[in-house]
Amino acid sequence: MRLSRYFLPVLKENPAEAQIVSHRLMLRAGMIKQSAAGIYSWLPLGLRVLKKIEAIVHEEQQRAGHIPLLMPTMQSADLWRESGRYEDYGEEMLRITDRHGRDMLFGPTNEELITDIFRSHVNSYKDLPLTLYQIQWKFRDEIRPRFGVMRGREFYMKDGYNFDIDRDSAIHAYNRHMVSYLRTYERMGLQAIPMRADSGPIGGEDTHEFLVLADTGESEVFYDSAITDLTLGERAVDYDDRTQCADIVTEWTTPYARTDETHDAALFDGVPEDRRRTSRGIEVGQIFYFGTKYSEPMGATVVNDKGERVPVHMGSHGIGVSRLLGAIIEASHDDKGIIWPEGVTPFHCGIVNLRQGDAATDAACEDLYKALTAAGLDPLYDDRDERAGAKFATMDLIGLPWRITVGPRGLKSGVVELTDRRSGEAEELSPELAVTRLREIYAAHGI
Amino acid sequence: MRLSRYFLPVLKENPAEAQIVSHRLMLRAGMIKQSAAGIYSWLPLGLRVLKKIEAIVHEEQQRAGHIPLLMPTMQSADLWRESGRYEDYGEEMLRITDRHGRDMLFGPTNEELITDIFRSHVNSYKDLPLTLYQIQWKFRDEIRPRFGVMRGREFYMKDGYNFDIDRDSAIHAYNRHMVSYLRTYERMGLQAIPMRADSGPIGGEDTHEFLVLADTGESEVFYDSAITDLTLGERAVDYDDRTQCADIVTEWTTPYARTDETHDAALFDGVPEDRRRTSRGIEVGQIFYFGTKYSEPMGATVVNDKGERVPVHMGSHGIGVSRLLGAIIEASHDDKGIIWPEGVTPFHCGIVNLRQGDAATDAACEDLYKALTAAGLDPLYDDRDERAGAKFATMDLIGLPWRITVGPRGLKSGVVELTDRRSGEAEELSPELAVTRLREIYAAHGI
Repeated sequence: MRLSRYFLPVLKENPAEAQIVSHRLMLRAGMIKQSAAGIYSWLPLGLRVLKKIEAIVHEEQQRAGHIPLLMPTMQSADLWRESGRYEDYGEEMLRITDRHGRDMLFGPTNEELITDIFRSHVNSYKDLPLTLYQIQWKFRDEIRPRFGVMRGREFYMKDGYNFDIDRDSAIHAYNRHMVSYLRTYERMGLQAIPMRADSGPIGGEDTHEFLVLADTGESEVFYDSAITDLTLGERAVDYDDRTQCADIVTEWTTPYARTDETHDAALFDGVPEDRRRTSRGIEVGQIFYFGTKYSEPMGATVVNDKGERVPVHMGSHGIGVSRLLGAIIEASHDDKGIIWPEGVTPFHCGIVNLRQGDAATDAACEDLYKALTAAGLDPLYDDRDERAGAKFATMDLIGLPWRITVGPRGLKSGVVELTDRRSGEAEELSPELAVTRLREIYAAHGI
Repeated sequence: MRLSRYFLPVLKENPAEAQIVSHRLMLRAGMIKQSAAGIYSWLPLGLRVLKKIEAIVHEEQQRAGHIPLLMPTMQSADLWRESGRYEDYGEEMLRITDRHGRDMLFGPTNEELITDIFRSHVNSYKDLPLTLYQIQWKFRDEIRPRFGVMRGREFYMKDGYNFDIDRDSAIHAYNRHMVSYLRTYERMGLQAIPMRADSGPIGGEDTHEFLVLADTGESEVFYDSAITDLTLGERAVDYDDRTQCADIVTEWTTPYARTDETHDAALFDGVPEDRRRTSRGIEVGQIFYFGTKYSEPMGATVVNDKGERVPVHMGSHGIGVSRLLGAIIEASHDDKGIIWPEGVTPFHCGIVNLRQGDAATDAACEDLYKALTAAGLDPLYDDRDERAGAKFATMDLIGLPWRITVGPRGLKSGVVELTDRRSGEAEELSPELAVTRLREIYAAHGI
């Protein structure tokens, strides 16, 4: 993308309304614009990152064998009356009356709707196991929306639902989800720690939240530092292998890790003192096993292999897709701006032309732009007639992890400069080598 | 995808509520499920086609230089009061009050919100021309939703907005959109005819609708048959070339083509009698040029090259993304079911195993599945333990354009059968050649 033809409205001033760094940086980098309290438009740069995160979630869900569908945002109140949650849900549910006077709502979650789809179409244990999921906009009418996309009212979320014939199979679904979530967050450059949690209004007996450590987190967290050494890395996972999934879950749930809601001081004291950590965390996902809580009242049953009709065992699983942008920025930024992990960066690298209008420099930038594009990478070329300082500041603010600087002086010796946003380290090398180097860096991230 | 692990709830019976063939086939093929009047869940197969159509729209928009962003579904009423449309819009606008008693609405279109984004961030003629677009869920509270996704209440739509310094530049944006829309529909296997239209509540002086010919269309259309001979084909289009875009628009708008709303009987009589056609059409898109209708009242101005502040010239442009599924099916089906054009088919081909459980046949199907996947194609393998007739009926119903049938008899002679869904013609050939053939067929569609 050529910046002269893009829409990247960066702000020079710090917006007064933003209390935390991710909100401030998203506004300043021209990623979002508030349209009403807790409701945002996603400007082009923000939408690019949102789509990268969404794509990773889709890929990892489908790798685990889960099937995507899409439920509407507007729902009839009838199903929620059937489950008993219409009255329970409280004022966070946005209730609406349509022109015919029918009670509707903007879905805050979808256990009822998915259970209705299931009971309408599935009848036999032979069709199980089944996990359906979606990534869709949801609305929760927060009384005090704040922190930008971290606690907005309209937000983008992955919600998935498993249907299994018995408890064992449902527990495997739970484990499979935990493993696939760990991999999902790793690909985004995040360490998200699974912590035993409370089930809240979703209900159920077993639940873990995934928390990213950050000073601005809303939850206080207590953990054994051994858990932050764990990584899935390149480990091959067979999501049908119950033992392998269970072993990974054991590995990640054995070290102590809890939020203030479930913290057990006596247990925590059992962790060796030098590994005891107290910090703050941002919740970026949660998984639940709730058995037959929805299937019994809503009649989601199948015929088992003995010919008996039994309620299915269910769980649900969520990832806060739009919230993740905020969490990643909270975990990865410096004084100059955002530092995107390679897996989610909106553009793979920036190209800064130090002397726009100089024929040789313009031509070298164009060649580089074409070579990077031909290599399957997505550069953002700052081709504006601006001072070098302003161009550098913009690139640093929007957080592209790599920048290539092209100027007449370097070109005389046949070199450009490749700069690492995170370390600030720069290296002079030929344009061809810069492309090769970036191709290798992104290949290591599966891109 | 292996059908045994997929969620494809096909219906044997014709659903009573469906009045038109696309609605009936989408329900029967397990593509959608109604959750409330005019509101649908997109089951996995339907979502696949929706995503294919969305991807084509994105690609063609970006090829024309348009920039994607995403606006929220929920909007504050304030902006609509500013433009004067809050009261005007009527009961199709879903009005909502949030927990703080503020007036909100579910966006039926987004001229106000995009104009607000523009005026907040753009200040100079140097930032023009600019075209921003999104593909987002919208809601219109139709009094009598019907015809499935063709006239639903919650629907998926591409809406784009151009901002230009003057009328000439805005007319180029209009022309550019017409050309890119023609290409978009062609890639979906559709012929959509641009017809001079009324502007309705959007307003403006210049507008064309795009109509797909189909007996079930809601509009009566009158056209010169010469227009149906036109095709863009492989023509290279430079979207920055005003003359080329204008010439293509002239080519497509010279033959008579109007809906009943703008029909002019006297003009129509001027068309040679053997080329006069009356038919019905489904509207799948519309483009508008409306000058300063929104920019003036809402203060969307820029400083021009003389230092004067002037309102920008705008247009808006829509494609009914979810509606297109219905339109494509109306235009492409037979007694047995849907016939997807290659550009939008949910899977590139079906594999039917005639003797599930037979080791050699199973192995041949697996090999074929892997070879097709390795060739970048997406097969749907019917690996269920079902009769051949039931498998064929499912494949015909869901409309995959190509099917490979694998049975023990053919395998003895080293052949499988490749069947064209549209013509019914079948050819025996080696599995390797079948893969090569399909690879060639899809390459011709740019896939």
